[in-house]
Amino acid sequence: MDTFVLVHGSWHDGAAWDATIRALEEDGQTAFAPTIAGHGKGVNKHVNHADCTKSIVDYIVAKGITGFVLVGHSFGGTVISKVVEAIPDRVKRLVFVNGFVLRDGHSLSDEAPPHYGALFDKLASESTDDTVMIPFPIWREAFVNDADLEMAKWTYAQLSPEPYQPIKDKLDLKKFYSLPMPKSYINCTEDTAMPHGDWNWHPRMSSRLGLYRLVQMPGSHEVIYTNPKGLAAKIIEAGRD
Amino acid sequence: MDTFVLVHGSWHDGAAWDATIRALEEDGQTAFAPTIAGHGKGVNKHVNHADCTKSIVDYIVAKGITGFVLVGHSFGGTVISKVVEAIPDRVKRLVFVNGFVLRDGHSLSDEAPPHYGALFDKLASESTDDTVMIPFPIWREAFVNDADLEMAKWTYAQLSPEPYQPIKDKLDLKKFYSLPMPKSYINCTEDTAMPHGDWNWHPRMSSRLGLYRLVQMPGSHEVIYTNPKGLAAKIIEAGRD
Amino acid sequence: MDTFVLVHGSWHDGAAWDATIRALEEDGQTAFAPTIAGHGKGVNKHVNHADCTKSIVDYIVAKGITGFVLVGHSFGGTVISKVVEAIPDRVKRLVFVNGFVLRDGHSLSDEAPPHYGALFDKLASESTDDTVMIPFPIWREAFVNDADLEMAKWTYAQLSPEPYQPIKDKLDLKKFYSLPMPKSYINCTEDTAMPHGDWNWHPRMSSRLGLYRLVQMPGSHEVIYTNPKGLAAKIIEAGRD
Repeated sequence: MDTFVLVHGSWHDGAAWDATIRALEEDGQTAFAPTIAGHGKGVNKHVNHADCTKSIVDYIVAKGITGFVLVGHSFGGTVISKVVEAIPDRVKRLVFVNGFVLRDGHSLSDEAPPHYGALFDKLASESTDDTVMIPFPIWREAFVNDADLEMAKWTYAQLSPEPYQPIKDKLDLKKFYSLPMPKSYINCTEDTAMPHGDWNWHPRMSSRLGLYRLVQMPGSHEVIYTNPKGLAAKIIEAGRD
Repeated sequence: MDTFVLVHGSWHDGAAWDATIRALEEDGQTAFAPTIAGHGKGVNKHVNHADCTKSIVDYIVAKGITGFVLVGHSFGGTVISKVVEAIPDRVKRLVFVNGFVLRDGHSLSDEAPPHYGALFDKLASESTDDTVMIPFPIWREAFVNDADLEMAKWTYAQLSPEPYQPIKDKLDLKKFYSLPMPKSYINCTEDTAMPHGDWNWHPRMSSRLGLYRLVQMPGSHEVIYTNPKGLAAKIIEAGRD
Repeated sequence: MDTFVLVHGSWHDGAAWDATIRALEEDGQTAFAPTIAGHGKGVNKHVNHADCTKSIVDYIVAKGITGFVLVGHSFGGTVISKVVEAIPDRVKRLVFVNGFVLRDGHSLSDEAPPHYGALFDKLASESTDDTVMIPFPIWREAFVNDADLEMAKWTYAQLSPEPYQPIKDKLDLKKFYSLPMPKSYINCTEDTAMPHGDWNWHPRMSSRLGLYRLVQMPGSHEVIYTNPKGLAAKIIEAGRD
């Protein structure tokens, strides 16, 4: 049995993992899902990427969690890459779930297609607090393409605006790329949040991990909602020794 | 419940959708499958692409069908792209089933690999009526690769020669690319009618749709025969709001 | 019912096919799995690629096997490409299971990513008999990524060092590329023994076959161990007329 720390992606908070955690626990696993600083409804959104990382490190240290599998979904991939630099000895393996694996010195913005960059710049500049809310049509077609309309609306209602600064912060990842940590990548085969083709998650992001374990499952970027039991099974498969 | 107009591909006629329609109707959906002008056995094959489009538009208008999902398989993708330009207000969503999404000003021939072009030129020049019949070995290996030999032969017997002019006609698709219509793309993961690699259906064709909903299923280019129930389920998933 | 000759890959011997043969026989098929010269435990490893080919040809001729489907896994793909040149009239169809389809004049080394080449050069030079043993971490993450640790260790214990000369021998494949033999390619979708992206099995290797039948299944490079029943079903699907 393993222990997992699950780090959510943009617009989400820790509660996005609720159903996945139930499935993990039914299998006898242990799982934690902290909320990243600046994320969730009704909180201060003025954070940078270092604040995001620190909030997860602080959670892990305060809880005294060790020997665990560190899982990052989407934007959460950038967070676990920095968390593991801070506390490498506590982490047994990294698992990216269609997560960003940034090149050293890059920001998430540097790795997203230009049409997203232009849209997010505009949305952030129109917000009062430098945040970006994903428009529902993009969410429905490209993020939860495997949901029916009712579930698409329900999941959208769980989201909150994403602080833009962590998306723009360029990250020093030299230590990350030097760590001998085992790594896995879960790719959902219908995930078009990053468009298939030149901008795909896999193998564009995954191959940067060097030697890694590939695990795939059907589904969209948001199997966290549309197939949490399936996701839990794949996290176990990706996380085991 | 939705209403679907299903537009077949090359060598087929409307009857190719029979089993898919039964599966859609069993689910409570409504579906129509007109035969494109110049298609089917024993008909006049001297048609161009505009004739093909007009025949489908006329069918829809005569039947008074509105608020429907317009589905195009393979060559049928080029037809629905022009049909929706003629009657955009009747169409709720476009669904391409491994369908051609041509670039503005291109013909289907312009989007197929050179070895197909050379073969089709030769076959058309050898025919008495400027048509192309796909050779059985190509049909068996690259189109119905998931069928057994008996089904491969039976399906081949359903086909009739394809008029070549609509394949060569270059299409003005400026209006198509300006329509805000929601769009979906169903990709069958073993469909090698367009060779995987540089000439693939997905993401080469699908990504031209801009924001679109990706739906995938196992199977060949001819799941219309080899898995009509599975295809119907994916058409419903692709067509829903 | 078909007859199959199954040719194993690097580090394996014929016994690797045991469970697949049981599944084929339960379906009423007939199957043979010779061990390639220089392969298996405790044998003379000083062989070249021609010795490998000759050992399989000799086996088939001695057994009097005709009208069979010739299957090659991984390195075995290079062997069946030369075997079929020697005895084309006995072979009904070729099936590559994530097998190497080399370009004329190339060696397997020429088709593998540079990081494997550098590693294998080093391992061979450190060996006493010009062989290469795959390190367990690579085996576990990139070859049997769908196994649990226990099965990963058990499968690794079945392996023996691979003679390096056959990997380095450049092959004349002009006759292979001129044979009109039907061909199939089975691609396991989580097989990362060749890294996904520029070095992938499919469509990089498969597309060199010209007209071929694609069959896909979930799983790693070693479904021969992790899903032999599923592999047998796909071999039947790939091998039928």
